Amino acid sequence: MTKIANPDHPIEPTLARRWSPYVFSSRPVEPQILRSLFEAARWAASSFNEQPWRFLVAVQDDQEGFAKLLACLTPKNQEWAKQAPVLVITAVKTAFTANGKPNRVALHDLGLAAGNLSAEATVRGLSVHQMAGVDLEAARQAGAIPEGFEPATAIAIGYRGEPDQAAQPAHADRDAQERKRKPLSEIVFGPEFGRPASWLE
Amino acid sequence: MTKIANPDHPIEPTLARRWSPYVFSSRPVEPQILRSLFEAARWAASSFNEQPWRFLVAVQDDQEGFAKLLACLTPKNQEWAKQAPVLVITAVKTAFTANGKPNRVALHDLGLAAGNLSAEATVRGLSVHQMAGVDLEAARQAGAIPEGFEPATAIAIGYRGEPDQAAQPAHADRDAQERKRKPLSEIVFGPEFGRPASWLE
Repeated sequence: MTKIANPDHPIEPTLARRWSPYVFSSRPVEPQILRSLFEAARWAASSFNEQPWRFLVAVQDDQEGFAKLLACLTPKNQEWAKQAPVLVITAVKTAFTANGKPNRVALHDLGLAAGNLSAEATVRGLSVHQMAGVDLEAARQAGAIPEGFEPATAIAIGYRGEPDQAAQPAHADRDAQERKRKPLSEIVFGPEFGRPASWLE
Repeated sequence: MTKIANPDHPIEPTLARRWSPYVFSSRPVEPQILRSLFEAARWAASSFNEQPWRFLVAVQDDQEGFAKLLACLTPKNQEWAKQAPVLVITAVKTAFTANGKPNRVALHDLGLAAGNLSAEATVRGLSVHQMAGVDLEAARQAGAIPEGFEPATAIAIGYRGEPDQAAQPAHADRDAQERKRKPLSEIVFGPEFGRPASWLE
């Protein structure tokens, strides 16, 4: 199944093709591909080039490690994410290394890195499903995340599965839903919030 | 000038080619291209599909609007960003629309959208320079950002300029610097923080 966005303006096919599936195939992700995914994340922009992102990664082959990270997800997320061949818990460094001041945009910059990872995955025919539904305290314990870092999100990575591979029929139903977004005019304004941008019409 | 990342593992050229210049050409960005950039942002993933991102956009032609947003940047950022043909102040909705609960990952998801915008820009030969150096209170005032939303970052968008177009020689020098990142082994671990991932070697 492919599920392409129906953009109102032309965009790069890789970005249009990306969506977050609930059904993953059991096919493992090749180590060299996994390296490229995180390499893509590595080259994201970040404030003062701090690179606040960290990734704890478990592959299905490592049953113990995978179970440990899986247990940090909310029960709803565990139901489908247990089938993903790769599971990631992300963390961010909360202060700048150079001066110890709080990094207000650490989470934002993690998003830039995760977006790169997601784009690289799409190019390679893989899918990514990011989750905010993480028990942060459990993640800190399970991943031995030290002081100065904060657990942030989870990411399931793998090849998409067929509907009959869904852990629950509801997951296949969700994968079949149309992708929807707010109209551009609701998120993009001129220099004042809520006032239309002249070039958008 | 192109400045390609020197990745340790192969990645999508669009991601390798992206970097954040300090010198922009005065060439305006075509409205239809600007629409595609924000359309790409629009299709990013977000927690509960909340799409918490908002973009206030000023183009150089709108001198008043541009000056208003420019004045929200830190003085250092104003020095070079004043030459960018397009300037953006971003904001996020801080709570989920469905239930009013705080959206812990709003800034993260803004990062995903900004990453999409940045990738689309790179594909189209444009450059993006994101900034955390924003006077948030000034941005709230200038952009009339209402309660429930928080100003977040700024984004300069345009075609790259030649070194002799730099507002200051130091900007051209910064553009000439090599791109650097931490080794992958410092940001990617196995299921435990600080412990190497077996597939990474």
